[in-house]
Amino acid sequence: MALPTLAITMGDPAGIGPEIVAKALPEAFRVCRPILIGIKEGFVDAAKACGLEDIARQIGRSIPVETPERLSEYAGAPKPGEADGAPRMGYDLAFRGMAQAAFVRMAVELAMVADVDALVTAPITKSALHKAGIHYPGHTEILGDLTGTQTPVMMLIGETLRVVPLTTHCPIREVPDMLTRKLVEEKIRVIDKDMQRYFGMSKARIALCALNPHGGEGGLFGKEEIEILAPAVVRLRSEGINISGPHPADTIFVKAVKGEYDVVATPTHDQAMIPIKLLHFDKGVNITLGLPIIRTSPDHGTALDIAGKYSADPTSMITAIKTAADMVQKIRIHG
Amino acid sequence: MALPTLAITMGDPAGIGPEIVAKALPEAFRVCRPILIGIKEGFVDAAKACGLEDIARQIGRSIPVETPERLSEYAGAPKPGEADGAPRMGYDLAFRGMAQAAFVRMAVELAMVADVDALVTAPITKSALHKAGIHYPGHTEILGDLTGTQTPVMMLIGETLRVVPLTTHCPIREVPDMLTRKLVEEKIRVIDKDMQRYFGMSKARIALCALNPHGGEGGLFGKEEIEILAPAVVRLRSEGINISGPHPADTIFVKAVKGEYDVVATPTHDQAMIPIKLLHFDKGVNITLGLPIIRTSPDHGTALDIAGKYSADPTSMITAIKTAADMVQKIRIHG
Repeated sequence: MALPTLAITMGDPAGIGPEIVAKALPEAFRVCRPILIGIKEGFVDAAKACGLEDIARQIGRSIPVETPERLSEYAGAPKPGEADGAPRMGYDLAFRGMAQAAFVRMAVELAMVADVDALVTAPITKSALHKAGIHYPGHTEILGDLTGTQTPVMMLIGETLRVVPLTTHCPIREVPDMLTRKLVEEKIRVIDKDMQRYFGMSKARIALCALNPHGGEGGLFGKEEIEILAPAVVRLRSEGINISGPHPADTIFVKAVKGEYDVVATPTHDQAMIPIKLLHFDKGVNITLGLPIIRTSPDHGTALDIAGKYSADPTSMITAIKTAADMVQKIRIHG
Repeated sequence: MALPTLAITMGDPAGIGPEIVAKALPEAFRVCRPILIGIKEGFVDAAKACGLEDIARQIGRSIPVETPERLSEYAGAPKPGEADGAPRMGYDLAFRGMAQAAFVRMAVELAMVADVDALVTAPITKSALHKAGIHYPGHTEILGDLTGTQTPVMMLIGETLRVVPLTTHCPIREVPDMLTRKLVEEKIRVIDKDMQRYFGMSKARIALCALNPHGGEGGLFGKEEIEILAPAVVRLRSEGINISGPHPADTIFVKAVKGEYDVVATPTHDQAMIPIKLLHFDKGVNITLGLPIIRTSPDHGTALDIAGKYSADPTSMITAIKTAADMVQKIRIHG
C-alpha cells in the first residue's frame, strides 16, 4: 500500500512546533508523505537551527508546504521564543493565535476533501487563541466544530496505558453535574467504535474510573457511582460494549498497566493526566476519536520557555506521526 | 541507642493482617522490639500457616501479645478469609469491627503512656467498623480523636514520592467548599513541622497541587487556585515555610519524582493516590502526621479476597515497621 499522506501543522509559530516538526521529518519519511501546514520560513529556519541542512533544503521543494492565504503576506518567520506581547514583524500574540487556528482549519479542509489521509497537529498556545478572539479550550473542540462532530473524544496514549478524560477543561466544581449518563454513554460508544476502526481492537476492554474516593464506598463518599456511572455501565454492556466499573482510581491504573484493560475512561481531567504523564512524560500521543478524520498530536504544550533553544525532544511528535500512519493503514483494513 | 518498642496491631482479624504481621516479624526484630496487639491464636495460626514455626513458638513468649480485655473471652482465632456475615465462633462482621477498633485503642493507650515508642497498624475493614457502630472514615480520624488531635494529616510515602491528600474520604462534589484556606494552611503547617521532627528535613520543599485542570488556567477553568490556594501559599511562605504552587497536576508529580520537591499536597484524594499507587503499589507506607505519637501502616487494605490463602506480600508492612523505627530514632535526635 502507498504511504499515507499526513498534514502536519506548525502550531504556534513561536513555540517548539517548527522545531519538533523539522526534527521529526527524517523519521516521518519512513512512514508517510508529509505535507507541512504553516509558514515556510519558520520550518526552514528551525531545520537550519537544528543542523538539518538537508531537511532545510527539501522544505518547499520535495516537502510541500501549504500556507493559509491571509498569512502569506507576512514576510519572514516568527522567531520561536520571542516573548508574548513583543511583536516582531507583526508576529504578536493575537497573530500567533490567528495563525495557529488557520493552520488547523487548512489541514482539516485538506483532510475532508481526502487530499490527505490524516492530520498531525503541533501544539498551540491557548492564551494566543483567546487573544485572537478564538474561544476554544483546545484542539479537540476546534476539530469537533470544524468537522461538525458532536462528540469529539480526547484520548491519550502511552506505551503501557490509554486514557480518556470524560470531562476536560472545566472547573472540578462543575464536573459532578456535567457527568451525565448521556455524556458518559456517548463518549464510551465513540471509544468502543474507534478502538475497532483505528486500532483493530474488537470489543476493547474499557474500564470506567470512579469519580469519588474508593468509588464512593457504597454511597458513603458520593452518589455519582450509584446514580450515574453504574447505570451507564449496565446500559453500555447491554449494547455489547465490553466495559466494567466504576473502579476506584487507586487501583485501576495499576491493573490497566498490567494489561487487564485497553482503555481507562476517567470522570476528571487530572485522573487521566496524572498517570499518563507520570508513566509517559513527553512521550505520549493525543488522539481525537469520533471525528470523520484521523488526528493525532504530541502530548505536550508549546514549551515557550525552551522555544528558540532548539533543545526540544521530538519523540512525542515522531510517535504522533507514526501513530497517525498506523491508524490510516488500520482504517484501510477495518474501514 | 536501644531498639525502639513498636506496638503492632492485628487489624481486621479476618483480613491479611495476622499473616503480614507474622511474615514481617523476622525483619522486624532487626529494627525494633515488637509488641503485638490482637488475638494471640490468630497470630500463631497465621505464623504456622506461613511455615514460620519459630515465630509461632515465640508469639506470646519472647514476643509479647496484648489483648483488649473484652476480647479475651472469645476462644480460638477468627479464620482469615471467612466471608462477611458468616459468623464462626462469634467472629461476625460487627465483632471484627469492634475488635479492630479495640486493638487501635489499646495501642494508642500504650503509646500515650510511653510504654511503646510508636504504633504500626495493620489494615482495618471499613464496613466492619460501620457494622459495629463505629463511624469513622479510617484510621487517621480514629487516631486523631483518641489522641485529641485537631488536624491529623495522612501522608503516603513511597521510595520516590511523598504525597498528602488535603481532603480524604468525602465526595468530590464537596471538595471545592471543604478546601478552605484554614484547612490548607493548617495541614501544610503540620507537614512542615513533622517533616523536620520525623525525617530531619529542615524546610522540606512542599509543592501544592492545583484543584482544577491546568491549575485553573488563570481562572478560565476554576477560581479556587486564585481565591484559596495561591493566597494560602503566600501566607505560608511569609511564615517561612518552603512551599510553592499551586502547580498543575499534569506535571507536578513528574517533578517531585525527579527530586525537585519533598512532598506534594493535593486537594483531592485521587490526585494523591493515583501517582503513589502507580509507582509504589503495595510497597508504600501510610503515616499520620500531627499526632502526639508516631504511627505508620501499610498502604493497602485487608485484602479479604486473598486472606486465608497466605500469599500476601508483607513488603509494605515491613517498610511500615522500618519507617516507624527510623522515625523514633529521628525524634530522639530532633524531637
